[in-house]
Amino acid sequence: MTLAVSFQDVRDAAARLAGHAHRTPVLTSRTADEQLGARLFFKCENLQRIGAFKFRGGYNAIARLDDAQRRRGVLAFSSGNHAQAIALAARLQGVAATILMPADAPAAKMAATRDYGAEVVTYDRMTQDREALARALADERGLSLIPPYDHPDVIAGQGTAALELFEEVPALDKLVVCVGGGGLVSGCALAAAGMAPGCEVHGVEPEAGNDVQQSLRAGRIVTIDVPRTIADGAQTTHAGVLTFPIIQAHVRDVLTVTDAQLVETMRFFAERMKLVVEPTGCLAAAAVLQRVLDVKGARVGIIVSGGNVDLARFSSLLAGGA
Amino acid sequence: MTLAVSFQDVRDAAARLAGHAHRTPVLTSRTADEQLGARLFFKCENLQRIGAFKFRGGYNAIARLDDAQRRRGVLAFSSGNHAQAIALAARLQGVAATILMPADAPAAKMAATRDYGAEVVTYDRMTQDREALARALADERGLSLIPPYDHPDVIAGQGTAALELFEEVPALDKLVVCVGGGGLVSGCALAAAGMAPGCEVHGVEPEAGNDVQQSLRAGRIVTIDVPRTIADGAQTTHAGVLTFPIIQAHVRDVLTVTDAQLVETMRFFAERMKLVVEPTGCLAAAAVLQRVLDVKGARVGIIVSGGNVDLARFSSLLAGGA
Repeated sequence: MTLAVSFQDVRDAAARLAGHAHRTPVLTSRTADEQLGARLFFKCENLQRIGAFKFRGGYNAIARLDDAQRRRGVLAFSSGNHAQAIALAARLQGVAATILMPADAPAAKMAATRDYGAEVVTYDRMTQDREALARALADERGLSLIPPYDHPDVIAGQGTAALELFEEVPALDKLVVCVGGGGLVSGCALAAAGMAPGCEVHGVEPEAGNDVQQSLRAGRIVTIDVPRTIADGAQTTHAGVLTFPIIQAHVRDVLTVTDAQLVETMRFFAERMKLVVEPTGCLAAAAVLQRVLDVKGARVGIIVSGGNVDLARFSSLLAGGA
Repeated sequence: MTLAVSFQDVRDAAARLAGHAHRTPVLTSRTADEQLGARLFFKCENLQRIGAFKFRGGYNAIARLDDAQRRRGVLAFSSGNHAQAIALAARLQGVAATILMPADAPAAKMAATRDYGAEVVTYDRMTQDREALARALADERGLSLIPPYDHPDVIAGQGTAALELFEEVPALDKLVVCVGGGGLVSGCALAAAGMAPGCEVHGVEPEAGNDVQQSLRAGRIVTIDVPRTIADGAQTTHAGVLTFPIIQAHVRDVLTVTDAQLVETMRFFAERMKLVVEPTGCLAAAAVLQRVLDVKGARVGIIVSGGNVDLARFSSLLAGGA
């Protein structure tokens, strides 16, 4: 079967992103290395623009629009990092962005999205169907809908995070990536296949939301209820029709970690690495640091996907709250 | 007057540190740049080993010991970052380290220092004189005392932070550095004088502890009471006899910021840059971000000196506590 995205697409995305996305640093921790008997390389996408890897896919998708599409503008529905990614990426490319957000989304997130220059349209989560509303709005205004993960240009853009990591750190034995809808892990797996074919790619989901793990076992996309987890960026109910075949082809397995393991990892990042990492951004590192994945003797790349966590919530989670 | 340290000493220290200290990343914030109409380059020493620039000076000082001194070991008195810097730098070089700490120092800091392999000797702050005790211990055991700032090898080591910044970001107009005892700012000012003679160096002290600002005005070292400030790494009472002449020669001025400005800056780092920075580490950035120093139109290097803040205290400060 032909996959929707190729390694060359990831390379092309990297060329488009050059000078626009941050080339984020790769940090190390000798403490963690000594404890695990491994060499860990943390690719810090929490230090990316808008605080998460999502900027990569959003920017690439908008860069691929034709002139007529650019003039009409783009639409995204998200209350999270994808919203800010599209808002900023659109502004930088002179494209109008409309973001559909639930009316009860945090005021700070709405304000941040507006600050990036987007128009925020709200809807009532209880009574209105988000996807139908998005389609109606896109049709009415002629907007290009940019979904958060199941889109070839989004997948290719996300893969540039791993591409940069492989450029900087050769000979990785394992690459560990968080899994929500699968945009990041599928793009990164394509980069691994192209640049380091011997490198095993492992996905990591929250234990409460292991739909992709189930899907890999079942050999088809399994849909679950919205999972209850602090990893709000991985509260997806199913993989995408484009991302899943890439995961099947290039990801060795999908592991899970608990919310408690995410909090421990958040604490590790703050105390030992001086980094603010959101719960979802801790997924990949948690599997390694909490020894869900055996990495002894290995050189391991870890994608730290984002750092957008409200500071009050950050403090509360670290203090043992939820 | 001949200064105790030269630019060549800083270059020599950089050669000794290569492969041992992290070459810390230089991060940027387009948000801050747009707000200030400037280009800011943050040299992130909170991401240095032990979480602070102090590793540089400590490592360099130990590397400069002769064989007999190495065999006997080193001594430092500190309850802060210098203690951990000496403990780790000594271990890495196979040298025994003794750290003199107040008996009521936080248990976590004592444990961290022991974890790095040092012997911790405690004293009673109320009844014992730390410096006399240190001298007695050094004499008795033949240990080399490594002071936290007033030592040529320590100053030269600290200067490598700015050296790396100038290597990575040429043509800086201003370099802004926190000031405690003056080890970091004097070393960095030597690096600036050697690598970017047109670059103005500005020091920043806590408002409550502006002894170096007073000293520059008076033309002599002024001693103050222990200042009350959240910037615990800058609670020094006077500059050093070696650091002060370097500051006089190469630092344009010393500015001050309030504790409230430090907290605002800590919040900026956590929210916008996803970095944990300790209050002292916020001094230089606070002067720029809170517009104490005018940077409009300038390219500005900012040393972020450290990130070692207890997470409970971090949360409490951000929540408005003290």
